[in-house]
Amino acid sequence: MQLIDYKKPLEIGEVPIPTIQGEEVLIKIVGSGLCHSDLHLMDGSIRIIPRFPFILGHENSGTVEEVGEAVSGFKKGDPVVVFGGWSRKPDRFTWTGQEQLTNIRDWVGIGQPGGYAEYLKVPTFRYLMHTEGVDLTEAAVLTDAGLTPYRAIKKLLPTLYPGSTVVIIGCGGLGQFGVQFARLLTPSVNVVAVDVDDMKLSVAKQLGADVIVNSKTEDAVEKVKEITDNEGSQGIVDFVGADVTLAQAYSMGGRQSKLVVVGLAGGTLKFTAGLINELDVTTSNWGSISELSEVLFLAQKGKIQTSVKKIRFGEMNRTFEDLRAGKLEGRAVLLPDKC
Amino acid sequence: MQLIDYKKPLEIGEVPIPTIQGEEVLIKIVGSGLCHSDLHLMDGSIRIIPRFPFILGHENSGTVEEVGEAVSGFKKGDPVVVFGGWSRKPDRFTWTGQEQLTNIRDWVGIGQPGGYAEYLKVPTFRYLMHTEGVDLTEAAVLTDAGLTPYRAIKKLLPTLYPGSTVVIIGCGGLGQFGVQFARLLTPSVNVVAVDVDDMKLSVAKQLGADVIVNSKTEDAVEKVKEITDNEGSQGIVDFVGADVTLAQAYSMGGRQSKLVVVGLAGGTLKFTAGLINELDVTTSNWGSISELSEVLFLAQKGKIQTSVKKIRFGEMNRTFEDLRAGKLEGRAVLLPDKC
Amino acid sequence: MQLIDYKKPLEIGEVPIPTIQGEEVLIKIVGSGLCHSDLHLMDGSIRIIPRFPFILGHENSGTVEEVGEAVSGFKKGDPVVVFGGWSRKPDRFTWTGQEQLTNIRDWVGIGQPGGYAEYLKVPTFRYLMHTEGVDLTEAAVLTDAGLTPYRAIKKLLPTLYPGSTVVIIGCGGLGQFGVQFARLLTPSVNVVAVDVDDMKLSVAKQLGADVIVNSKTEDAVEKVKEITDNEGSQGIVDFVGADVTLAQAYSMGGRQSKLVVVGLAGGTLKFTAGLINELDVTTSNWGSISELSEVLFLAQKGKIQTSVKKIRFGEMNRTFEDLRAGKLEGRAVLLPDKC
Amino acid sequence: MQLIDYKKPLEIGEVPIPTIQGEEVLIKIVGSGLCHSDLHLMDGSIRIIPRFPFILGHENSGTVEEVGEAVSGFKKGDPVVVFGGWSRKPDRFTWTGQEQLTNIRDWVGIGQPGGYAEYLKVPTFRYLMHTEGVDLTEAAVLTDAGLTPYRAIKKLLPTLYPGSTVVIIGCGGLGQFGVQFARLLTPSVNVVAVDVDDMKLSVAKQLGADVIVNSKTEDAVEKVKEITDNEGSQGIVDFVGADVTLAQAYSMGGRQSKLVVVGLAGGTLKFTAGLINELDVTTSNWGSISELSEVLFLAQKGKIQTSVKKIRFGEMNRTFEDLRAGKLEGRAVLLPDKC
Repeated sequence: MQLIDYKKPLEIGEVPIPTIQGEEVLIKIVGSGLCHSDLHLMDGSIRIIPRFPFILGHENSGTVEEVGEAVSGFKKGDPVVVFGGWSRKPDRFTWTGQEQLTNIRDWVGIGQPGGYAEYLKVPTFRYLMHTEGVDLTEAAVLTDAGLTPYRAIKKLLPTLYPGSTVVIIGCGGLGQFGVQFARLLTPSVNVVAVDVDDMKLSVAKQLGADVIVNSKTEDAVEKVKEITDNEGSQGIVDFVGADVTLAQAYSMGGRQSKLVVVGLAGGTLKFTAGLINELDVTTSNWGSISELSEVLFLAQKGKIQTSVKKIRFGEMNRTFEDLRAGKLEGRAVLLPDKC
Repeated sequence: MQLIDYKKPLEIGEVPIPTIQGEEVLIKIVGSGLCHSDLHLMDGSIRIIPRFPFILGHENSGTVEEVGEAVSGFKKGDPVVVFGGWSRKPDRFTWTGQEQLTNIRDWVGIGQPGGYAEYLKVPTFRYLMHTEGVDLTEAAVLTDAGLTPYRAIKKLLPTLYPGSTVVIIGCGGLGQFGVQFARLLTPSVNVVAVDVDDMKLSVAKQLGADVIVNSKTEDAVEKVKEITDNEGSQGIVDFVGADVTLAQAYSMGGRQSKLVVVGLAGGTLKFTAGLINELDVTTSNWGSISELSEVLFLAQKGKIQTSVKKIRFGEMNRTFEDLRAGKLEGRAVLLPDKC
Repeated sequence: MQLIDYKKPLEIGEVPIPTIQGEEVLIKIVGSGLCHSDLHLMDGSIRIIPRFPFILGHENSGTVEEVGEAVSGFKKGDPVVVFGGWSRKPDRFTWTGQEQLTNIRDWVGIGQPGGYAEYLKVPTFRYLMHTEGVDLTEAAVLTDAGLTPYRAIKKLLPTLYPGSTVVIIGCGGLGQFGVQFARLLTPSVNVVAVDVDDMKLSVAKQLGADVIVNSKTEDAVEKVKEITDNEGSQGIVDFVGADVTLAQAYSMGGRQSKLVVVGLAGGTLKFTAGLINELDVTTSNWGSISELSEVLFLAQKGKIQTSVKKIRFGEMNRTFEDLRAGKLEGRAVLLPDKC
Repeated sequence: MQLIDYKKPLEIGEVPIPTIQGEEVLIKIVGSGLCHSDLHLMDGSIRIIPRFPFILGHENSGTVEEVGEAVSGFKKGDPVVVFGGWSRKPDRFTWTGQEQLTNIRDWVGIGQPGGYAEYLKVPTFRYLMHTEGVDLTEAAVLTDAGLTPYRAIKKLLPTLYPGSTVVIIGCGGLGQFGVQFARLLTPSVNVVAVDVDDMKLSVAKQLGADVIVNSKTEDAVEKVKEITDNEGSQGIVDFVGADVTLAQAYSMGGRQSKLVVVGLAGGTLKFTAGLINELDVTTSNWGSISELSEVLFLAQKGKIQTSVKKIRFGEMNRTFEDLRAGKLEGRAVLLPDKC
């Protein structure tokens, strides 16, 4: 499935199956997730596509089809997920296992051909991970929609302690993982979920939120102040990133709290200094391969729920329209083999 | 020397010498520093004075005059500095030695009577530190103008490494300490000093800055990009905190860099999320008693230069005017004993 | 209840009720826990008693009876626990909220008169913590038997991750808290409990251990290797500290794992370097006041179970004999008011 | 130069020049350092040689001779060093940039053919680092003799602060780097160097040690206690690792200090628990590729001195004898091109 130009629908095309050597591995795709950032790539609001036609798809799982001579630890038939933050530039981030921060032009499905296809060439077996015990369709989703909130929640951990309060703003696809990870990773912490949609909030509640707040009908900042005895929250993740949620998030933070912005809605946070505060604002971008291994472990143990809608090649353009319109529940995953 | 109302000059008054018991200690003031935040307290732009008349002065050194029965480790005549971030509310910050973040109404010279006087009552010997080998007038200045930049620079350390670049924005009183601490505490790091005043920049150069940039005549952001091979700086402290410096500071930051805002000029930083970034923005407020002990050690070893102008009671109002007008070089310190 | 000499039974004596001033607080003791370290103090194997007769008792709870003039935040009748690691020497550890590491001669019930009495004078309200919602008899036990394992488990956290394995060696009083805290604080970690007593192991199981190993009948090291696919454990706490348990603990550790020794059985660990390893061994001593606040929170939320046997003055000597003989189940707590 | 069996001298042999593909790079060796651990490999005290004949050599520098098709960022003629802790097993350590802790059988010159040859095949360009501005012979030495002490000193940093004391035990090849890194990386710390050889101590002094102690003539433990006002040292690296140095190192440590054992002399440290202590003992093994980049930066800036003796193929066996006898000053480096 190829993007032939910005603002054009994807089109089916025929491409040769990649040849493999050295450390490379050919993957037969089982699932490839449809992500909101694909919309930005398709409409050109992020102009990074290296050439047309181009195969998108950066959330990939599959089975090993062929391995190069220098591959170690993987053989034909192994079920795997593909870590997508590829890098070909050895720099400080690559050397410390944060390749996803190195060069967006090396990422699969963004700068390099991706997984909306029957086969995917992975440049080195070092970007693969064994995936026994996890449904491969769900596993695809974990490589981004699962991994990104995981990294964000981990960034909160140093400021949390038993009795502290975490706020998750935005309980859609990523936020629902956020609530689950906040519940799993933090020691006896109060988890507050904020959204404007009662149905999403009720899912958040079911996934472990202690308190849910509909910010359309309640003042979320006041509510958090009340819950925390006026201190504010110690950790906040904003999965929306709009002006209004960023302002809420910032106002909720207590002394030495951490606010992590994940959502790319393009909002601007207005940050000012004060006499006693030391609130800390940062962003969290995708996740590392080591973090992906932890997400995968949690899935193998049945600790996280993933909601997936399986689609075929022919349904992709329509599904992207639904995604843009906010009409999609859970994550859509392309199953190339089922077309 | 008392503040009798907002926007009024300080006036000399007679007050009884405090009586002492328990853990309390009476200090005979040797030096009490004049700080820019006093101006905010005096003109009411920060409205926190508990009652009038009120004795300001939160940068204090002196000798022990009298100790309560429960005091341990201090005796009459000992030269000491006073840690000023007092707290009477045992909470998480007090318990971990960050009392300066607990309650501004307990701080000396701000919520409690301060050091613009001949004697100062300190509520517990736990807020005193022995000061052999440091000039007591300089030592007074270290308790805030020295301590605040020290804490800010320490916040940068986790993101720095040999070959990384630190930027100090604003090379006035605090910034000059900032340059010195960046030089002393960071391992083989490139120190860049930015200001609009060539004289301050030349002092920064002499105190250890590798590169100086006058942001009136040069584009500081471009300069830092050039020095860092387009990566940006790994650590930045903004000692000004105006809109323009905050915007510069934010644009200079590289991936996973840290930006610490110290200056209280009231500017607003516009923070937005992106795909690869993880820049981290926070503030740094005063310092802890443990950090003060480290600053004092560096002074005892002659590693930091402090520029002090000694004044008497009768010169205070005029000196505050000079401070407001930016006409003061170095830090003014009241010497009550010399009037 | 006074110690009149080493190796002598405790004796009842009359002492005046302490007078209170400044930051001091008089506590009416509700519970004072009997600790194994009291045995070392009583028989002189640790020779630190400052004078005879001496009142032991370092695990204390009660209600506020009287407050000095400089006390803030506490009033007559408030239920409280007493943090026991008192310090009168302001040094680096005191300044950073680790007073328990400063000077054993300042500790309550060890260097200073303790809680085996009807009243206890606490030198400053800064060592008190409000205790609403926790049974005061249980709360006494939390100040040491609860706090010590809490700190030990917290030391493991940096080396743990979802899927890693923690081993608790010794499932007596402290170890049972250790199992509970490992369960509560670690994210999806495998908790292995090791002991030689099946009954204690079955309690450990009920408190949350995933795997129990009786090291009298099974090779605990082999078992851990097997569970961890030959990698070894990432975190181990030895609550015994005998030669044999230390050797086990050390052999169980994987690469970059952490081994924390809490037990004071006097054993020696034989540590050697190797080509790939970086195992890290340390001890954990008591806990900080901030950590105590976290333990108390967990108790208030009903997250930890504490097993207490309530005794009177007249039962103390016999109870200490039982403790020495290992015949005591749970923690014995003196209730002075019930005599 | 090949090892044909344990306990045999190395012999010259002819081997084909390796062919290159994918991510592989062929290096023309400029320098390959002779290391003490080669002696253990040669005499079979560490039995890990995969087959005979075998080419040792794990400290390598050179120029790029040929690159595979998938190589990025390196071209023929580039001066480089080779990070030697190769791994072909993607596990948690590989994923976080600590490949040197993964599998000794993948290391260059130990499990895989090494650099005592004219050419070396490196499995992926990700293990190469550009080396402009450093003499390539010295650069070879930095990849182990420089890197290992660097990692060890970095492990001390969290426990150090201005005014704290670091002790370096053993001032031979690695220890001399240790003194330099302690000086460069630690903020205003007192560096104490301990050895039994006055000449090595005088080199340590010249490289930046504040205090030198000959432990043959002085009690090193007493000396450190004296210097530290009886507190003990906050950070210690033992580059010897014999029974006697380990016992010294352990006795020198203060509260919450860190002791890092690097030396592989085979000694045993006897570790026991106490009431107030929290000393932390660990080992440090080689270094990461990210740490190597920092060492290289320091060399490029002229911050570290490396003492090198250049030898040819024909001198290797004799030089290894000298190394075993402790008669070598500085590090011997084979220059294959000069034979």
